[in-house]
Amino acid sequence: MRAVDIIIRKRDGYTLTAEEIDFFIQGLVQGTIPDYQVSAWLMAVLLNGMSHRETVDLTMAMVRSGEQMDLSDIADFVADKHSTGGVGDKTTLVVAPLVAAAGVAVGKMSGRGLGFTGGTLDKLESIPGFRTDLSVEEFRAQLRRVGIVVTGQTAELAPADGKLYALRDVTGTVDSLPLIASSIMSKKIAAGANGIVLDVKVGDGAFMKTQEDALALAQLMVEIGQGVGRRVRAAISDMHQPLGYAVGNALELIEAIDTLHGGGPTDFRRHCLVIAGQMLLLAGRAADEEEAQAMLEGLLDGGQAWAKFREWIAAQGGSVEHVDNPALLPAAPLTRQVLAPRSGYIARLNAREVGLTSMLLGGGRSKKGEPVDHGVGIVLQAKIGDRVEKGQPLFTIHANDQAQLDEARHRLLAAYAWSEEPVTPPPLISRIVG
Amino acid sequence: MRAVDIIIRKRDGYTLTAEEIDFFIQGLVQGTIPDYQVSAWLMAVLLNGMSHRETVDLTMAMVRSGEQMDLSDIADFVADKHSTGGVGDKTTLVVAPLVAAAGVAVGKMSGRGLGFTGGTLDKLESIPGFRTDLSVEEFRAQLRRVGIVVTGQTAELAPADGKLYALRDVTGTVDSLPLIASSIMSKKIAAGANGIVLDVKVGDGAFMKTQEDALALAQLMVEIGQGVGRRVRAAISDMHQPLGYAVGNALELIEAIDTLHGGGPTDFRRHCLVIAGQMLLLAGRAADEEEAQAMLEGLLDGGQAWAKFREWIAAQGGSVEHVDNPALLPAAPLTRQVLAPRSGYIARLNAREVGLTSMLLGGGRSKKGEPVDHGVGIVLQAKIGDRVEKGQPLFTIHANDQAQLDEARHRLLAAYAWSEEPVTPPPLISRIVG
Repeated sequence: MRAVDIIIRKRDGYTLTAEEIDFFIQGLVQGTIPDYQVSAWLMAVLLNGMSHRETVDLTMAMVRSGEQMDLSDIADFVADKHSTGGVGDKTTLVVAPLVAAAGVAVGKMSGRGLGFTGGTLDKLESIPGFRTDLSVEEFRAQLRRVGIVVTGQTAELAPADGKLYALRDVTGTVDSLPLIASSIMSKKIAAGANGIVLDVKVGDGAFMKTQEDALALAQLMVEIGQGVGRRVRAAISDMHQPLGYAVGNALELIEAIDTLHGGGPTDFRRHCLVIAGQMLLLAGRAADEEEAQAMLEGLLDGGQAWAKFREWIAAQGGSVEHVDNPALLPAAPLTRQVLAPRSGYIARLNAREVGLTSMLLGGGRSKKGEPVDHGVGIVLQAKIGDRVEKGQPLFTIHANDQAQLDEARHRLLAAYAWSEEPVTPPPLISRIVG
Repeated sequence: MRAVDIIIRKRDGYTLTAEEIDFFIQGLVQGTIPDYQVSAWLMAVLLNGMSHRETVDLTMAMVRSGEQMDLSDIADFVADKHSTGGVGDKTTLVVAPLVAAAGVAVGKMSGRGLGFTGGTLDKLESIPGFRTDLSVEEFRAQLRRVGIVVTGQTAELAPADGKLYALRDVTGTVDSLPLIASSIMSKKIAAGANGIVLDVKVGDGAFMKTQEDALALAQLMVEIGQGVGRRVRAAISDMHQPLGYAVGNALELIEAIDTLHGGGPTDFRRHCLVIAGQMLLLAGRAADEEEAQAMLEGLLDGGQAWAKFREWIAAQGGSVEHVDNPALLPAAPLTRQVLAPRSGYIARLNAREVGLTSMLLGGGRSKKGEPVDHGVGIVLQAKIGDRVEKGQPLFTIHANDQAQLDEARHRLLAAYAWSEEPVTPPPLISRIVG
């Protein structure tokens, strides 16, 4: 078998065999197939696509490229969730302890922010001492002991995905459904959870810009996971505007803490309840969505989710004092509330622009490996569909210096569109697949 | 400008600007754009194509990547020819001295054989002492003094092409019309000839398998050359069966010598007269094809072409004694004449199989840089359309050992198809473009 022949077969529109895909992925990981052959193959995959069967084979070849966690000795059922990335998406911070409080073990490997999207690890690292570099053994021990663990992706799981992604990023081969789906699912499958809820974002502030693309990705990932015996559901959720009000690391953590106390933005709380509900249903912990919702609302409002959150933060070395007293968390030196320049209904609030503004303030990174500032960010005071009068608070900027603050203000004001007529906000969750 | 953005634009089907193409080719040559980005771009070009204008821009960017020869101080008009490669194609060995004998300077950089196709340099190197590594200064001096020079491609001309080709070879991106056309034409344009005759082969024993592909390539190359002020014509010629009878380095040289003496195979002589005639017409040395043919036949049969050939060989250090006495040329130790296994008309004679057999005998190379054996090869005794009786000579194999000879015999016999009915051979030259 020669790499060039496999490239040519994909170039010419043929369906690759499982052996050919395996040969390619093994060659990539072992270094026997050079980058320039891999990138030509990636472009052929992007332009000619992959069948469902090829995508499953690619996913499993990536799973086999590294270690596979077996969590069956730790819990009957381990739940995981994954978001395809968005702006203001602090869902894991609430959902993980909420589901764990319901008695379902949650073991999750999470990621960092890049570009306009935030990352769960960056938000958690707003808490002094919180560790995101647990070893596999520490991951297993904490999952057994506390029933909840969220850490960074270990290099041992699906190493082929890391190599492929680094190449895709610089060769224009990111935007491919089979490559995106196999990348996500290989890591999720290798991480060993029995049930996985996928949160597929759609809108300006997400990688999937259209409902059709989001639905296709959701269905593909669900099929991949179910095809290898995992319980998988996907929610298609809105990312035309940020989720909740806060965008920025510590600001989002604070909003999550509010939500765990039974408060928080209405849309964000509802989103968390739906995602957590699907996890309970996969775990067989509730008979239907209504039962799941009732149970979860009780755990949020009764303080059990919050207690599990504190236990989790402490277990990973984080300062509980800081989450008990959010005023101690990192904060930006300059804060400015910006008022509405006109009256009207908010018709659009571009999530991507808000995410990019947070990045420019220092809250995100344009390249992997860059540090982030945990204090900066934006807190919205109104969202799509809200009626706002001129001079009412529209949003607050948390910045490190005046120039950045002024630029952020200018940019954010341009991210709004206004209407004289009432506006219906986009549906929070448009569909559940699986 | 970023390489990844140019890749994405080509991936998404946009037409690249001249600046973008130039940026990419310069980055390739300077090493600022890594191979893995170049190969992703090549695959996007192969699958999404290039406009006529993009192909011209790519060609000229490759021309500008190195030195450009200016031959205007040497001759009013310098002619060049290029074959896209075939089996038994010793045309340059006859056409170059023939055209030079007609008073038109011929300056040509030629190539080596690869796979089933032979190369002019390998054939010339059958002559002891013949040099194919002339410097640019030696090339110019010999062209001025002798009016004919054929040497290897220098690294200074179109270096981008060499780098691109090396990558295309291992990434499945060879078979792209714009990439093939720009590769050939960049070298021809940089080499400085005023007039270029392209010999585009079509058939099993050529890169272009169909008349449509050959015609499209011919038209594209003619348009590129004419677009930058060169006189260009292309002949589309048959490569379903080998050209002439001999396949193998010294064997082809001997056939070319026979042809320069006024003999040689009918098809090969006619092919040489057509190609040489087009070169005379481009040079304005003949009013029409008939005048050109008459002049060239006179030069072949009158000995002037042969005299120019001897002068050329001597000028490049080759042993004239060896071309005067071809029995001195390298010869294989074993020779075996194979007789027709049946009576009938030859319906097919697969050129590719004949070329591959010559390669297996040692006459060609499967990888660049491998040595070739000058003595081995095949001499056909009958071709498509010929009536052969069982037991008549069909072909002769020149080999180094018995095992290779037996394998070659078996393989060659399978390359024939027979008919009870008379068969019309494929047309030698189906079309002239330009």
